[in-house]
Amino acid sequence: MTTVESLPNGMESLALYVEILQFYGRHMRAMDECRVADWTHDFTEDAVSRTNARPGPHVGRAEIEAGAEAAARKLLADGVLRRHCLSTLHVEEAPDGTVVARSYAQLVTTPKGGASELELFCTCVDTFVREGGRLLIKHRQVHRDDLPKD
Amino acid sequence: MTTVESLPNGMESLALYVEILQFYGRHMRAMDECRVADWTHDFTEDAVSRTNARPGPHVGRAEIEAGAEAAARKLLADGVLRRHCLSTLHVEEAPDGTVVARSYAQLVTTPKGGASELELFCTCVDTFVREGGRLLIKHRQVHRDDLPKD
Amino acid sequence: MTTVESLPNGMESLALYVEILQFYGRHMRAMDECRVADWTHDFTEDAVSRTNARPGPHVGRAEIEAGAEAAARKLLADGVLRRHCLSTLHVEEAPDGTVVARSYAQLVTTPKGGASELELFCTCVDTFVREGGRLLIKHRQVHRDDLPKD
Repeated sequence: MTTVESLPNGMESLALYVEILQFYGRHMRAMDECRVADWTHDFTEDAVSRTNARPGPHVGRAEIEAGAEAAARKLLADGVLRRHCLSTLHVEEAPDGTVVARSYAQLVTTPKGGASELELFCTCVDTFVREGGRLLIKHRQVHRDDLPKD
Repeated sequence: MTTVESLPNGMESLALYVEILQFYGRHMRAMDECRVADWTHDFTEDAVSRTNARPGPHVGRAEIEAGAEAAARKLLADGVLRRHCLSTLHVEEAPDGTVVARSYAQLVTTPKGGASELELFCTCVDTFVREGGRLLIKHRQVHRDDLPKD
Repeated sequence: MTTVESLPNGMESLALYVEILQFYGRHMRAMDECRVADWTHDFTEDAVSRTNARPGPHVGRAEIEAGAEAAARKLLADGVLRRHCLSTLHVEEAPDGTVVARSYAQLVTTPKGGASELELFCTCVDTFVREGGRLLIKHRQVHRDDLPKD
C-alpha cells in the first residue's frame, strides 16, 4: 500500500485523495437530499454493504438501493433532515488499483421544528474500484460506535 | 459544470478544491476569532449574503460587515466561543470561471465556564469569483436546518 | 509565510495541504484506536506538547508517549470509544521549511452501551518539520474551549 505521505512527490496519490473528498462531498449530499438514484449510482453492480446496525449484508446495487429508498422515504415522511458530516479521511492505494478510504461521519439530525443534534457517529471503510474513469464503491463497512461490534 | 471527478487528470480542478479548503480554513477561523475585517475582506464589494435566519439579504460588503460586527461584539461581550466546523465540501466550476462550493457547518459553541455544544447545523452554498488572483465570495446562501426554509 | 492561496499555481503548497490531511487521517485514527506507538512516532524526539488541560508541557517523545498510554489504557479499561473529528484545516509554510497547521477537533465519545456525544471541542496548532521525508510534529498547542486559557 502506498499513501500520499510515502509519495510526497506523487501527484497521482494527491489527486486521488482530493478526488475522494470530492466524491464524498457529492455522495453524502445525494443521500442527505434523498436523491437515492444518484447515491446508488456510486456503487458497483455487485457491491456489498455491511453495517453493525443490520444482521446481514446488502448484496448488489439493487438491494443497496432498496435499503436507501426505505430510509429516504422515512426521512421525507417525518420531515427530518439528516446530514453526514465527513471528516478525518485516510486513503490507501493497493498496487492492483484498489483504493481503501477510511472516514469518520457524524450524523446530525434535525426533526421538524426541533434543534439539530448529533444522532450517531460511525466509521466507514470503503473499497473503491475504477470503472470507465469513475470511482465506484465495491465494498462498504460501516461501524456505528453506539452499537455492538457484530 | 466540471468537477474534480470528471477531470481526474485535471490538476486545475484539484488545485481549486484544495485552495477552497484552505480558504475556508482561514475564513471560518477569522469569523470564529472575531477578526471581522479579515473575514469581510473575503467578499466582493457587491456581494449578497442570504440566510433563512433573516428575512432579507445583506447586500454589499459594508452591510455584510455590519452584521458580522454585531455578531462578534455579542460573542465577545458574553465570553462565548463559537467554531464553524466545516466538512463534506463539494466544488463545481462553470466555464465562465465561477465556482460553486457547497459545505456543511456544525457550529460548536462554548459558553463561559460551560461545556461545548452543537448549537446549530447549516449548509452553505458560496459562489466565488477570482479578483486579482484571490477567490472572493460573490453570493452566499446559508440554510439553518432548525429553521423553516423561507 | 506563504499559503496555498497566495500560490495558486504552487503545486508544492497544494501537495503539502493534502499530505497534512492524510497525516491527520492516520494520526488521529492511531490515537482513537489506542495504537499509541504509531501515534507517538509522529512526534520528533524533542517535541513539546502543551494543552490548557494540563499545567505544564510534555517535553520529549517519551513523556508524550507516557501521557498517551495512560489515556489509551483508561479508554480500553472503560470500554469507551473516542474519535477526533478533524476539520477546518489551515496550513502555512515558513521559508525555513517549518509548517504550521491549524485544525479544529470535535471529540465524539461513546460510553459502552450508550449514545455518542460531543465530549469536547479543541483547537490544535501543530508545527511540523520534515525528517527523512516524513512530516513530524515538533510543537503542539491544544486549546480546549471549555477550559480557561492558561
